[in-house]
Amino acid sequence: MPELRRDPITGRWVIISTDRQKRPNDFRLEHFATIGREQCPFCPGREAMTPPEVLSYRQNGSAANAPGWDLRVVPNKFPALQVEGTLDREGEGLFDRMNGIGAHEVIIETPDHDRPLAAMSEPEIERVLWAYRERILDLKKDFRLKHILIFKNHGAAAGATLDHPHSQLIALPIVPDFVREELDGARRHFEVKERCVFCDIVRDELRDGRRVIQENADIVALAPYAPRFAFETWLLPKQHGARFEEAPRHVGESLARLLKPVLQRLDRTVEMPPFNLVVHTAPSAEDVRDTYHWHIEIMPRLTRVAGFEWGTGFYINPTSPEEAAKVLRSVRL
Amino acid sequence: MPELRRDPITGRWVIISTDRQKRPNDFRLEHFATIGREQCPFCPGREAMTPPEVLSYRQNGSAANAPGWDLRVVPNKFPALQVEGTLDREGEGLFDRMNGIGAHEVIIETPDHDRPLAAMSEPEIERVLWAYRERILDLKKDFRLKHILIFKNHGAAAGATLDHPHSQLIALPIVPDFVREELDGARRHFEVKERCVFCDIVRDELRDGRRVIQENADIVALAPYAPRFAFETWLLPKQHGARFEEAPRHVGESLARLLKPVLQRLDRTVEMPPFNLVVHTAPSAEDVRDTYHWHIEIMPRLTRVAGFEWGTGFYINPTSPEEAAKVLRSVRL
Repeated sequence: MPELRRDPITGRWVIISTDRQKRPNDFRLEHFATIGREQCPFCPGREAMTPPEVLSYRQNGSAANAPGWDLRVVPNKFPALQVEGTLDREGEGLFDRMNGIGAHEVIIETPDHDRPLAAMSEPEIERVLWAYRERILDLKKDFRLKHILIFKNHGAAAGATLDHPHSQLIALPIVPDFVREELDGARRHFEVKERCVFCDIVRDELRDGRRVIQENADIVALAPYAPRFAFETWLLPKQHGARFEEAPRHVGESLARLLKPVLQRLDRTVEMPPFNLVVHTAPSAEDVRDTYHWHIEIMPRLTRVAGFEWGTGFYINPTSPEEAAKVLRSVRL
Repeated sequence: MPELRRDPITGRWVIISTDRQKRPNDFRLEHFATIGREQCPFCPGREAMTPPEVLSYRQNGSAANAPGWDLRVVPNKFPALQVEGTLDREGEGLFDRMNGIGAHEVIIETPDHDRPLAAMSEPEIERVLWAYRERILDLKKDFRLKHILIFKNHGAAAGATLDHPHSQLIALPIVPDFVREELDGARRHFEVKERCVFCDIVRDELRDGRRVIQENADIVALAPYAPRFAFETWLLPKQHGARFEEAPRHVGESLARLLKPVLQRLDRTVEMPPFNLVVHTAPSAEDVRDTYHWHIEIMPRLTRVAGFEWGTGFYINPTSPEEAAKVLRSVRL
């Protein structure tokens, strides 16, 4: 059973996922290779290689766990957390832990092994976003789960082990620190100003323009003022809303319409970079409707400089967001 | 001039180091290759390839910036921060910034290109630790600098660009978040218990034993209870002390005596892993003598899983610290 443990100094929770543990003679450095088409468990016809699907979008009434799907969501075969069991909390001297109740799912975004998000049509991207939404809404019914995290590792250097386009969902019995920091900061801003800090940022950035990459009626893509990574890009809804999964359908359409060119701009500027994409939405059980503002953060993984940052949370970025936005804006699509 | 910027939501400071900025046509992914012996600017005889030294340990009265040294400290040729200038702070709407005053130095640990820390003799390791101490004590005289960070990236995958054994020092006009989190957590513990949380951990871990890797009279090496990384290892002084640079000489000797076998154990268990080593010491100008406790954290970089963690600060670790400590303890040296 995986375990959640809390660092007694910083309060940071980590998952100790011993079910994924390597054999003692296999502690070496993992190589940065991904599983290719020949053995890909996410390609049509290999549905038996994954656990049974929890959601699929299918045409022509094809049977579950058989070809004919446009998108599939399956439990992760090597989950960091487990759905079964009760959420036991335990203290041991200084230390706090709970058993690793949660969910870990894979969103297989397309049957096409070679069709990354940036190459998909807008309706296909919208379908992926819709699947995110449906899975969040379903898992929120489980009151043990306090936060649902959706992310995408694109490229081996960003942590992907499979080339086939996919995202991941992790539902957690705690709210992770990086979400807590955002929530706390946004609450402090609201307490002083009675306004959402993200709304203030969107308004100021649109007026200023230097860090805006692209916008449409509902969404703006911008280089944040204090980016941790070169070409870090955020997509924010212009209309306030705390939860990604509660955004109106037309906002989802606008998001898909903007996500595609933003990814294309990154691809053309920095030559198909590996990246992590993280959906930031409010924790399931917390009422932060006034203070929090859902958004998407894309972090390209370009520089080795980040080796150090990784262990300390302290970031040195060699590219200013004004320069990054300017370069990204200038890409001809 | 580099710039420090504060994220208006989380309060996180980042360095935008545009002096290190790449040309617009050079935004591609950096390759994981390091500079080898042929072009190594840190080897004896190539002293002119680095900025003039700020400290060196030399034998036989050899001249500065010439061969004959055992250890050299030089300013980083591509500094993330600059020493010259005044510390101007500025607000712009929602945003806060200051100019990037600070220091960025390189500690060239040995003249021998092929002598990593784990292969050095104890007196050689002690000399490296002594250089850390001397540089911290010198830079603390500059009241603009609020925190001094010493770290080591070992191996290309950990961010090192040069094979030649070296550490880095960054002196900052702010206290970085990861240090602030530790300070805050330690202060909260002290407020409740009137005891240092690190002292409590050392005492409990020595009594329990399951996570202890090795110890001597003054220092204990342990796998922390909630490690972010597989085989993460902390070295803590048994005697309370907030500042690494104020530790008595015999503690420095004990640290060197323990650091060597700990690195050897990691090397033999996980086959010479890339790692980041970070010295955690109290911020220069803060009186946290009762609550903070200096220590060293070593984070091996083994798994790709961390791709995601890098962008979110949320960690999944496939190896329990009890298992890691057991494996490391069992290595025959």
